Amino acid sequence: MAKKVAVIMGSDSDWGTVKGAVKMLKSFDVETEVHVMSAHRTPAEASAFASGAREAGFGVIIAAAGKAAHLAGVLAAHTTLPVIGIPIKASTLDGLDALLSTVQMPKGIPVATVAIDGADNAALLAIQILALSDEALSAKLLEMKEEMAEGVREKDAKMQQEAERL
Amino acid sequence: MAKKVAVIMGSDSDWGTVKGAVKMLKSFDVETEVHVMSAHRTPAEASAFASGAREAGFGVIIAAAGKAAHLAGVLAAHTTLPVIGIPIKASTLDGLDALLSTVQMPKGIPVATVAIDGADNAALLAIQILALSDEALSAKLLEMKEEMAEGVREKDAKMQQEAERL
Amino acid sequence: MAKKVAVIMGSDSDWGTVKGAVKMLKSFDVETEVHVMSAHRTPAEASAFASGAREAGFGVIIAAAGKAAHLAGVLAAHTTLPVIGIPIKASTLDGLDALLSTVQMPKGIPVATVAIDGADNAALLAIQILALSDEALSAKLLEMKEEMAEGVREKDAKMQQEAERL
Amino acid sequence: MAKKVAVIMGSDSDWGTVKGAVKMLKSFDVETEVHVMSAHRTPAEASAFASGAREAGFGVIIAAAGKAAHLAGVLAAHTTLPVIGIPIKASTLDGLDALLSTVQMPKGIPVATVAIDGADNAALLAIQILALSDEALSAKLLEMKEEMAEGVREKDAKMQQEAERL
Amino acid sequence: MAKKVAVIMGSDSDWGTVKGAVKMLKSFDVETEVHVMSAHRTPAEASAFASGAREAGFGVIIAAAGKAAHLAGVLAAHTTLPVIGIPIKASTLDGLDALLSTVQMPKGIPVATVAIDGADNAALLAIQILALSDEALSAKLLEMKEEMAEGVREKDAKMQQEAERL
Amino acid sequence: MAKKVAVIMGSDSDWGTVKGAVKMLKSFDVETEVHVMSAHRTPAEASAFASGAREAGFGVIIAAAGKAAHLAGVLAAHTTLPVIGIPIKASTLDGLDALLSTVQMPKGIPVATVAIDGADNAALLAIQILALSDEALSAKLLEMKEEMAEGVREKDAKMQQEAERL
Amino acid sequence: MAKKVAVIMGSDSDWGTVKGAVKMLKSFDVETEVHVMSAHRTPAEASAFASGAREAGFGVIIAAAGKAAHLAGVLAAHTTLPVIGIPIKASTLDGLDALLSTVQMPKGIPVATVAIDGADNAALLAIQILALSDEALSAKLLEMKEEMAEGVREKDAKMQQEAERL
Amino acid sequence: MAKKVAVIMGSDSDWGTVKGAVKMLKSFDVETEVHVMSAHRTPAEASAFASGAREAGFGVIIAAAGKAAHLAGVLAAHTTLPVIGIPIKASTLDGLDALLSTVQMPKGIPVATVAIDGADNAALLAIQILALSDEALSAKLLEMKEEMAEGVREKDAKMQQEAERL
Repeated sequence: MAKKVAVIMGSDSDWGTVKGAVKMLKSFDVETEVHVMSAHRTPAEASAFASGAREAGFGVIIAAAGKAAHLAGVLAAHTTLPVIGIPIKASTLDGLDALLSTVQMPKGIPVATVAIDGADNAALLAIQILALSDEALSAKLLEMKEEMAEGVREKDAKMQQEAERL
Repeated sequence: MAKKVAVIMGSDSDWGTVKGAVKMLKSFDVETEVHVMSAHRTPAEASAFASGAREAGFGVIIAAAGKAAHLAGVLAAHTTLPVIGIPIKASTLDGLDALLSTVQMPKGIPVATVAIDGADNAALLAIQILALSDEALSAKLLEMKEEMAEGVREKDAKMQQEAERL
Repeated sequence: MAKKVAVIMGSDSDWGTVKGAVKMLKSFDVETEVHVMSAHRTPAEASAFASGAREAGFGVIIAAAGKAAHLAGVLAAHTTLPVIGIPIKASTLDGLDALLSTVQMPKGIPVATVAIDGADNAALLAIQILALSDEALSAKLLEMKEEMAEGVREKDAKMQQEAERL
Repeated sequence: MAKKVAVIMGSDSDWGTVKGAVKMLKSFDVETEVHVMSAHRTPAEASAFASGAREAGFGVIIAAAGKAAHLAGVLAAHTTLPVIGIPIKASTLDGLDALLSTVQMPKGIPVATVAIDGADNAALLAIQILALSDEALSAKLLEMKEEMAEGVREKDAKMQQEAERL
Repeated sequence: MAKKVAVIMGSDSDWGTVKGAVKMLKSFDVETEVHVMSAHRTPAEASAFASGAREAGFGVIIAAAGKAAHLAGVLAAHTTLPVIGIPIKASTLDGLDALLSTVQMPKGIPVATVAIDGADNAALLAIQILALSDEALSAKLLEMKEEMAEGVREKDAKMQQEAERL
Repeated sequence: MAKKVAVIMGSDSDWGTVKGAVKMLKSFDVETEVHVMSAHRTPAEASAFASGAREAGFGVIIAAAGKAAHLAGVLAAHTTLPVIGIPIKASTLDGLDALLSTVQMPKGIPVATVAIDGADNAALLAIQILALSDEALSAKLLEMKEEMAEGVREKDAKMQQEAERL
Repeated sequence: MAKKVAVIMGSDSDWGTVKGAVKMLKSFDVETEVHVMSAHRTPAEASAFASGAREAGFGVIIAAAGKAAHLAGVLAAHTTLPVIGIPIKASTLDGLDALLSTVQMPKGIPVATVAIDGADNAALLAIQILALSDEALSAKLLEMKEEMAEGVREKDAKMQQEAERL
Repeated sequence: MAKKVAVIMGSDSDWGTVKGAVKMLKSFDVETEVHVMSAHRTPAEASAFASGAREAGFGVIIAAAGKAAHLAGVLAAHTTLPVIGIPIKASTLDGLDALLSTVQMPKGIPVATVAIDGADNAALLAIQILALSDEALSAKLLEMKEEMAEGVREKDAKMQQEAERL
C-alpha cells in the first residue's frame, strides 16, 4: 500500500505557507495528513505521533516551524522515517533563526531542510522519496519536470517580446 | 529545604564550557546535579527529567547545547520551572546557530538565555533566582558583586602603572 | 508578601510590544510596576531604581530596549535580582543589534534574555521565577500550560478540516 | 535489488569531511559510489551522472561542496532522485555561503540540506530514505538509535562522576 | 562586428529589476538578447546557450537570479566569456543568499558580481568591457560619467537651497 | 570665529534622513553647509572640498552614504578634521553594508561612525566636538541633556497611567 | 591648558589591543589617563568618572569593550564630552556583538565608533578632535599623514620588485 | 598592442593573497603592473593612476583591499576601464566587511567583484575580458578549462580508489 505523508506545522499561523505543500502532495495524489502540533506546547502529542508514524503507514514527515524551530528535530528524535523541515519566516530575522534551528542538527538525527518558506519543495522532496518505490509517482515527477521546463521556455519567448518593446 | 539546580548538557563535549557553571554553583554551596541528556538522542530521558524536576526538588534547570540547540526548549516544554539556556559555540557559525535556536522561543515557553558559552552567568542567574527566597544566598551574591568591583579596582590601579611604562 | 515585578522600557515607543508583558503579568495577578527609564537619558533614575528594587519588594526586573540595548545590563549592574531582557526590533537590523547587546553580557552580570519582541515570554519567565516560592502561581502556570496544549489540539482539529477543503 | 548511494564532492579537498558519509554508508552495508565532480569544472560529467543515476541503480545522490555550492542544485536539476546537500565550510564565512547556496533552492528543484559539514547526517538521511522499502535497513536504524541513546546514558553516568570531582 | 550582450534571468519575476540593465544597454546602442533560462528547470538550454555564446557573437553574458542563485555560475562553467552576475533580492534574507551564491565562486570559474539588484551596473560593466575595443562606446561612457557628475552638481545646488529652508 | 559643520550626502535621496542632522545643528545655532557630493560620481569635488575644509573654517565634516558607503572614508583621506559617518539604510541588507563600509576603516584614517540612519546623533557628536572650545555650546548641550531626561520622566509618569488602564 | 584623553577599558584583557591607542596618544604628546572600569562591575566608578571628566580637564573619552559592549554608551550618558568607542573582538561572533552594542546608540547619546579592535584609529580620532583648537597637534597630524603616504610609496616600490621576481 | 593589467593592493600585507593573481596573469603572458596604493593613505596616487590607466595601455584594473575596502570603488570612480575587486579577509568579520564594501557599489560605478580572497579568479576574469579581442588568449583559456576538467577527472579516479580503502 502506498505510504502517506504527514504535514505537521508548529502553529496554525504557518498555514498560509504550509498549504502549498499540501496542495502539491494532493496534485500528485499522495495521501496526506495535516496536523498542528507543537514541540513546546504539545510535546507529548508530537512525540507520540512521530513514534507511531511508521507503523501508521507514513513514509515521510514534513515539519514546518518558525523562530527557534525545534519541531522537525523533535519529531526526528522519535522516528527513523525521513523528516523534512521547512523553516518559516516570522516577524524578525527574516527566517534565519528558523533555518539554523532546523538545519544545524547534531550527528545522528538528520533533518532534510529546504529553503525558508519552501513548502512546495518540501512536498516535492517527499514525493521524490516515495517515488523511489513507486513507478507511477516517478513518472509524474518526470512529467512535472518537463512541464516546468516548458513553462520556462514559454516565458523565455514572451520575455524576448517584452524586451523588444523597451 | 533549599532547591537544587540541574545542569544538563546535550553532549559530553560541552563539559569544558559547562563545568564553569558547576564550579560557580558549588562555590555558592548550591546543590547541583549534572547530566548528559540529548533532546534528540535521549528525548525520553530529557522529557522525564524535566517533567519530574519540580517534584524532585529542583528550582532551576540549566541546559547547554550547540548547533541547532533544542535542549533548553525541549526541557522547558515539560516543566514550569525556569529554564536557563547556554548556547555553545561549535565548529561552525561561531555559536550564532545555538544562540538563535535557544533564545527565539515561541510564545508560551520561555528560555532564559545567556551569552554564547556563558556558563558562569547561567549559574549566577540560577543563584539569583534561588536567592529570592534565600537570604544567605542573597548576601553571598552581594559579597561577590563587591569582590568583582574590588577586582576591577585592583586591575585599574595595576593597568595605570602598566600604561606608565609604555 | 508576594514580590512585585518591574517592567522598564527604554522608550515609550516600546510600549506596543511591552504591554504584552504587562497584560500577562496582570492575568496572573502579579503586582506590576511600569516605568520608562533610559540607560542613556536617565541613567541616575535607572541606577537608583535598580539599586533599591529588592528593598522595594520587587522580585524580578524586566527591561525592554532596542538598538544598542544597554538597559537590561545597566539595571543588572545595580542589583542582584534576576533581570530579564527583551530585545526590541527597531527600524534597522531586524532586532539583531538589540539581541546581541542584551544577551552577550560579560561574566558576572547575567541578563536572562528572551526572544526579540518576546514580551509575553519575559512575563512568563518572571512568573516562573516567582512561582518557585508561590504555590498558587505555580498551579496557575500548570493550568495555562494545559490551556495552551488544549488550544493547539483545537487548532489541530480545525486545520485538518481546512486541509480537507483544499 | 538494493539501491545504491552516490557520494559526489565538488573537490577532493572536501574528502576529509565527506569520508564520514562514506564510512557511515558502509557500516550499513549500503553500496556506495564516490566521485569528484564539479558543477563548474566538469559540468558535463555532473549532468550526465545525474541524468543516468536512476537508471544506473542509484536511489539517492549526496553532494558536498563549499563556497558558492552549486553542485547539489545542479545535480538535482538533472534527476528526480532525492539529492542531499552537504554545505562544506571553507576558508571564509564559516560555511554560511555554502549553506545558503545549497538550501535556498527555488521552487521545483528541492535539495535536502543537512548541517554545515554534516556528512554523517547526510548518510543517515540517505539510509532513512532507502529504509522505506528495506526492512533490514530499517531495523539497523532502530538499533543505531538505541545505541546512540545508550551511549548518551553512559556519558551521563560518567559525567556525574566527573562533576563530583570538581 | 560589434559584440552582443546576453541578459539571462532565472525567472520572469526578475524582470522588474533586470529591465534596468536592458534599458541601459539599449541607451548605449549595444545589441542585446534577453532570455529566461533556469539553471535548475532548463539546465540543457542554459548550458547550450553558454556553450555557443562566443560563436554566436556575444561578448558578455549577464545573469540575474535570486535565492540559491546558481545561474551565473552554471553559465560561466560553459563559456570563457566574462559572465556578470546580478544577485536578486527575494522574499527572505534580503538578497544575502543570492549574493553569496553568485560571488563566492571556486577557483577557475569567476563570476563578475555586482550589487544586489544592481542591474544598471551590470549593464555598465558589460559596456565597459566591450568598450575596450570600441572607441565609440568608450567615448559614450566618458560622456555618461560627465553627465552623472553634472547631475550630482545640480542636486548639490538644489539641496543647498533646500537646506536653507529648514 | 566659530567653526562650521559640513553635512555631505552621497545622494539627494539621503536627504529624508540627513535633514535631521541639519535641523539639530541649526537648533544649536551651528553654522552648517550642506552638499551633495559623491565619492564615486564627483570624486574631484569631494576631494577638493575635504582638502580645503579646514582652511575654509570647518571644524567637522559629517558624511552620509548608503550601500558601499565610501564617502566618509574618502573625505577623511583628504583632511585631518574629524569626519563623522552616517551609514544610510538602502533597499537591501538593512544598512549593514553601509555600516561596515563606514566603520571598518583601516589604520591611519578614522571615521567616527554613528548608528545606521543616526543623523541626529551625528549632529550631536559634531556639536560635542565643537563644544570643547565653546562654552556656550557646552552649556546648551547640558541643557539639552537635562531636557531629554525631563522628557523621559514625563513619559514615565504617563506610561504608568497607561499601564493602569490595561 | 591642553586637554587630556581618558582611555577606559572594560577589562584588563582588552589591554593587548588598547595599548595601541595609548602608544599613539603618547607619540603625539597628548596627556593620557588609563583606567579599567566596567559598566557592569563598577558602574559607580564609571559614572563618576564620566560625570567629572570635563571638569577634570579631559577633552575626549575613549572606551573599549567586548561582547555586549555597554561601556562607551554608559560613559556617554554621563558627559557631554565626545566619547569614542572601540568594539573589542572576543571569543565568539568576531566582534559583531561589540560593534552593534557600541554603534547603534539611540537618539540623544552618540558614541563615535571606530573599527573592531581599531585602537589606533580611536586615538587618532581623539587627536583630530583636540587638534581643532591646537595648531601644534594639527601640524603633527599633517606630518603623520604625509609619513603614511611616504610609507605606502616605499612599499609600492618594494612590491613592484617583489612582483618582478614571481 | 596587447593591453596590460594593473594589480593594485591597498596594503602590502595583502600580497600573500594577491600574488596568486599576478602568477596567473604571468602564466597567460599578460603584461602586469603591480602597485601598493591606498584609497585612504595615498588617494592622490590612486586617483592619478586610475585617471591615466586607459591612456597608459591598461585594459583592466584589479584592486584588492580588506576591511572597509574602498580601493576598487575609488579607482572605478576615475576610469571607464572595468575594475575588478578582490575583497580581502582581515582579522575580524571573516571578509564580510570587505565583500560588502566592494560589491554594493551605487548606480553608475560598477565594480566586478569576485570571491573573498579570490585572487586567481580576479586574474582569470581580467584575462577573459582581454580575450574578447585576443584570439590567442581565448584559446589558452579554453585549454586551461580543459586542463581543469582533466584535473577533476584524475581526482575522481583517485578518490574512487581512496574510497575503496575505507
